[in-house]
Amino acid sequence: MKRAGDDEGAQQQQQGGEAAGGKAQSKLSAAAASAASGPGWTKVSCPCCASERVEPLVLVKLGPKVGPETKRWLMKLIGAPQKDGGAGLLAHPGEDASGNIIVVSAPRCTLLRATEELGLCKSYHNGNMEAFSYSDRDNFKDSDNMEAFLTTAERQYMVKYELDGLRAQRDLRIPGLPDSCILQNRDNIWQKLGSFGLIVDTFPLHEPKKLKELSEAWYAGNQLVQPLDKVNEYFGSSVAFYFSFLDFYTWSLLPPAVLGLSIAYFSGEVQREMLESVSGSQAADDQDDPGLVISGHMVQAVFSMLWSTVVMEMWKRRSASLSYRWGTLTLAERFAEPRPGFHGDLGVNPVTGRVEPLFPEWQRDLRMALVSVPVVGLFLGLVVLGMTCFYWGEARVQQLHKDWDSLLSQTLLYVPSVLHIVYTNMLATVYRTVAQTLTEYENHREESAYENHLTGKVLVFTFFNCFAVLFHIAFFKQDVPLLRKRLASLLIVTQLVNQVTEVVIPFLVDRFISAPHRTETADDPEEDKFRNQSTLPAFPGLFAEYIELLVQFGYLSLFSCVFPLTAVLLLLNNLTEIRSDAYKICRLFRKPCYPPVANLGVWQIAFEVLSFVSVVSNCWLLVLSPRLQKRCQEGELSSANLLLGAVIVEHLLILVKVILAALIPDEPGWIRKKREHIEYTSMQALRQQKLQTEES
Amino acid sequence: MKRAGDDEGAQQQQQGGEAAGGKAQSKLSAAAASAASGPGWTKVSCPCCASERVEPLVLVKLGPKVGPETKRWLMKLIGAPQKDGGAGLLAHPGEDASGNIIVVSAPRCTLLRATEELGLCKSYHNGNMEAFSYSDRDNFKDSDNMEAFLTTAERQYMVKYELDGLRAQRDLRIPGLPDSCILQNRDNIWQKLGSFGLIVDTFPLHEPKKLKELSEAWYAGNQLVQPLDKVNEYFGSSVAFYFSFLDFYTWSLLPPAVLGLSIAYFSGEVQREMLESVSGSQAADDQDDPGLVISGHMVQAVFSMLWSTVVMEMWKRRSASLSYRWGTLTLAERFAEPRPGFHGDLGVNPVTGRVEPLFPEWQRDLRMALVSVPVVGLFLGLVVLGMTCFYWGEARVQQLHKDWDSLLSQTLLYVPSVLHIVYTNMLATVYRTVAQTLTEYENHREESAYENHLTGKVLVFTFFNCFAVLFHIAFFKQDVPLLRKRLASLLIVTQLVNQVTEVVIPFLVDRFISAPHRTETADDPEEDKFRNQSTLPAFPGLFAEYIELLVQFGYLSLFSCVFPLTAVLLLLNNLTEIRSDAYKICRLFRKPCYPPVANLGVWQIAFEVLSFVSVVSNCWLLVLSPRLQKRCQEGELSSANLLLGAVIVEHLLILVKVILAALIPDEPGWIRKKREHIEYTSMQALRQQKLQTEES
Repeated sequence: MKRAGDDEGAQQQQQGGEAAGGKAQSKLSAAAASAASGPGWTKVSCPCCASERVEPLVLVKLGPKVGPETKRWLMKLIGAPQKDGGAGLLAHPGEDASGNIIVVSAPRCTLLRATEELGLCKSYHNGNMEAFSYSDRDNFKDSDNMEAFLTTAERQYMVKYELDGLRAQRDLRIPGLPDSCILQNRDNIWQKLGSFGLIVDTFPLHEPKKLKELSEAWYAGNQLVQPLDKVNEYFGSSVAFYFSFLDFYTWSLLPPAVLGLSIAYFSGEVQREMLESVSGSQAADDQDDPGLVISGHMVQAVFSMLWSTVVMEMWKRRSASLSYRWGTLTLAERFAEPRPGFHGDLGVNPVTGRVEPLFPEWQRDLRMALVSVPVVGLFLGLVVLGMTCFYWGEARVQQLHKDWDSLLSQTLLYVPSVLHIVYTNMLATVYRTVAQTLTEYENHREESAYENHLTGKVLVFTFFNCFAVLFHIAFFKQDVPLLRKRLASLLIVTQLVNQVTEVVIPFLVDRFISAPHRTETADDPEEDKFRNQSTLPAFPGLFAEYIELLVQFGYLSLFSCVFPLTAVLLLLNNLTEIRSDAYKICRLFRKPCYPPVANLGVWQIAFEVLSFVSVVSNCWLLVLSPRLQKRCQEGELSSANLLLGAVIVEHLLILVKVILAALIPDEPGWIRKKREHIEYTSMQALRQQKLQTEES
Repeated sequence: MKRAGDDEGAQQQQQGGEAAGGKAQSKLSAAAASAASGPGWTKVSCPCCASERVEPLVLVKLGPKVGPETKRWLMKLIGAPQKDGGAGLLAHPGEDASGNIIVVSAPRCTLLRATEELGLCKSYHNGNMEAFSYSDRDNFKDSDNMEAFLTTAERQYMVKYELDGLRAQRDLRIPGLPDSCILQNRDNIWQKLGSFGLIVDTFPLHEPKKLKELSEAWYAGNQLVQPLDKVNEYFGSSVAFYFSFLDFYTWSLLPPAVLGLSIAYFSGEVQREMLESVSGSQAADDQDDPGLVISGHMVQAVFSMLWSTVVMEMWKRRSASLSYRWGTLTLAERFAEPRPGFHGDLGVNPVTGRVEPLFPEWQRDLRMALVSVPVVGLFLGLVVLGMTCFYWGEARVQQLHKDWDSLLSQTLLYVPSVLHIVYTNMLATVYRTVAQTLTEYENHREESAYENHLTGKVLVFTFFNCFAVLFHIAFFKQDVPLLRKRLASLLIVTQLVNQVTEVVIPFLVDRFISAPHRTETADDPEEDKFRNQSTLPAFPGLFAEYIELLVQFGYLSLFSCVFPLTAVLLLLNNLTEIRSDAYKICRLFRKPCYPPVANLGVWQIAFEVLSFVSVVSNCWLLVLSPRLQKRCQEGELSSANLLLGAVIVEHLLILVKVILAALIPDEPGWIRKKREHIEYTSMQALRQQKLQTEES
């Protein structure tokens, strides 16, 4: 009943929202109708761009001390054609010339040119996807209606891309600002204005009506399927790829979950072992069925190895078809401008011949070797320290339990594990900030290099932090019951902690601290609603989400054979994770703005590395499997032979993995043909243009 | 004295050759002077292509029954502009219209356009290498003098490329041929004419003067350095890359050779072991210095692993700078026409939209799975059969030696090894033909796919054939002395056999069977000399050469720790190999014609895989090292712990290898900047052209 009530409420809200949206929109549309002339939006430069309705895409929030003169200058800059050094966009001053926001939109020509520059694919008139070419624009479907041609996320990213790429064409004084604030030739304007405090924020705007539709299709009901195309439409391919992977990965947990459940039910052995490890008593397990040569342990280990390979290969194929569908198959690599945070002495870039800050590579290498590596090492040391403390605590608690043996002492048994997990999580949070500072200090020129170094640092630490204890237990202590206990508590505690820090806390903050300041009614002018969006916190990025998935994947592929219920727990967790992540990105934060992407990028590699390591780990766990160990103790099998067998199995399985990875093509045949066709067409188009140039 | 005499003779010959060349050339130049009009060479289509001298590049040898009418038609086709369906080249009928050769050359415009199409880099006026662009041709150095602008090999390849790419633009009857010989629309003309027997051969011509110069700088004296740039100029980058790699690899054999020699001299242990294995007697080796914990065995094993990684990484860097120097850094991948041997039903290619033969992929997969895989398996079985026979023979001979113990029986000890090596070599030769037939039957569309599948097949077999016995001895029999003996005989016998089959036999055939039919005097018309070149056998390709290097590299990196003199033997072999290969390609065969390449291609991967396998193999050989085995037997070390240690060392070394490979950049910093500059410039050029097109 409560559910139904909720739904009704949502519907009422929606209707209200629609009405309000309609009203507010009509007001902005009124301004937009006179786009080519009059006040409101700035003028468009070419006739084809004049349209009935201008859609507010990005909000620029100005600093508190920005005068109308400066605001006018900025709007003129945004509106000026690109060949005159402007952004070629449309600007709207909000309610009046003195307000502290500028709403930015983009005319058709700018969007189409940006589509070509980014290398996006769009539907051709014959139904295929083709790399968009501006000179061939009339043959693409919907190329006269930008709202159908490009997704909301693409349009917003393009506006931000044009703004971020603005460069001064000569030395400039900014009207209304002191003389010390000067733009020098080739300066990145947007970044400089930010450092002058003129621009506080630039972020894409939510569209309440679309957001409502999206969230209903996404997490409001009991949907099993995510509306991925809509997510791509609204949040862009970067976010859509994350959710696609989450979705794919969650469904591919089904086979190991079923296997895990059946092993847990049918194999008495495992149940007994689990009971033992939970109760802490070492009941004898020599009554197990001697006819069973292959234990659930082994089945699970071999299955894990093959499963992780097949899943990663199948994901690559899925990823290729998604990327075709979303038109990002042929994204152009561009010779990027230096990232905003990059600094150095001005010089001539040997690649592009442009004057820009240069920073010698040997200095960066030195910084990495002398600062980053030791600091990262220090943190890894802290991990080891935590591990040592955990073992000390574990020993003390075991002693206590032996002395007292009460329900309390049995509960106490879990305390060191829980404490250690909390310590580990805190350390990870601190480290992430430190890693960012370090990578900033390394002063990478390209955004991608920055991202890769940051991700690399965090990955090394995360791997160490999450798996060091487990590897230590598995490989040095060789204590399977302890490993099982740790894994179980890690899975349950980590997931709880994550859900709480990620969703519950932001939700509470939003509901009880921020929201009261943000009450809005249907009659509010649209400008106020835009301004309200800027009070939401910025989206923290997908980094933490990917790390979470990676760690999960690690638990499952590296160690799940000792705790068969891992996949079941992860499946349950991920089914809620999809919903909570969706809720989070829709409701609790500002709309994020990511460039279009064609795949998971560096994360894909991280997952694949993990699936390689899983072979080593599983082979070792096979050696430790209770049944084999017992046969060893009974002298049926020499430990050298057992080890030799494991080594041979390991090498064979790695071979199988490599062959499997080579035999399953990374993209489905039809995608390969389409991609080649796209590449062929663009090559032909270029050649055609060249011929024309020569003839003319 | 004999040497000096030879040199004198060579000089005399050279002078004679020059005089003859001069005379003959003047005659052809006379024809060439009237290139734009008159008989001799066909007319050029544009004024800028008219030149004083036309250089004969490629010889087309016609079938015996080709009449003057057909020859005229063919020359007209070769001379017609490309837009009219011709090749845009220059043709010369040889001595008269009825002769069975056509000499082909290329005018400037065709060469320049082909340079752009192939994506070659050339010197820009500012001294940098830039991707050549036809519309910017005047800014490139020497772009008005084709003999300085392009290498001989490039010019010849371009002529062949244009001829091979000729396609009928409509259904055509060939004059002078029966009506059954018809060219259909989109048929590959050159291939069809070949199947009609109209064209027997198309090959580039040697230039006696240049060849003489090259061979003197290359192998006639005692040079330590190869004239690689000249090799690139004359034979093209494909051949030059092979010789560069051979050169680089030979020099990088110095460190392991020095190490091997010092180990062999200073470590009494190894000497004693070698003596034992050679004499076959099992003398006790327990008097070795107990203070030495690390034996030469171990030093060599660890060194081999690191050496192979570092060498491959350094080669990548060297390869990148060579490719920059030779202008092949940015070779364009083109959407190749199907390879000549490809057949199938006519259909529309979904990628290019062209009508061409299509062959369903599932059918190819089926052929691979049902024919290729079993046949390859059969040959692998033959290898195992050979191995079994070898062991049987080995056992018999050992028995014989024990019974008789004479000098004869001691010599007999080597017979099974030698027989087996000969069997192995013969099997390899047969298999190579079979692999070609199989790959042909698989009917790959692209030349590159064909090459890769062929190389893959041959590699699997070669690896099995050359290393199976060694692996078997090392891993199953665990018999280090036998391994050492095998390795020594393999190294010596294989190298002798190779040198004989590769050089001595072709030399003898050439000198005593072919040459008498080919006596030429200085007064012969140049046409006859050209015709003489067609009597030389075709160059057998670099495939066998690469295989030879790969096997060498395998012996060294996989097993050298048991026979420290491996590197010394290989070094000696390669110093002669460089000379004999150079002699072979210059003198014994027709001039080969390969497309320009930017690296070793699939061979690079094969070498890297081998260097990975070397870690596994060396770790195992470490375990088998006599010192460790003795400690094991004496009970100081349990065999399980020894094995565990080896596994840990192996995993660590693989990690080190991966990190090392990641830390050493694949191209030197300055090359990276140059490459990026080239890419940036071409992108800018394209954008410029687009803007012009739009404005016009």
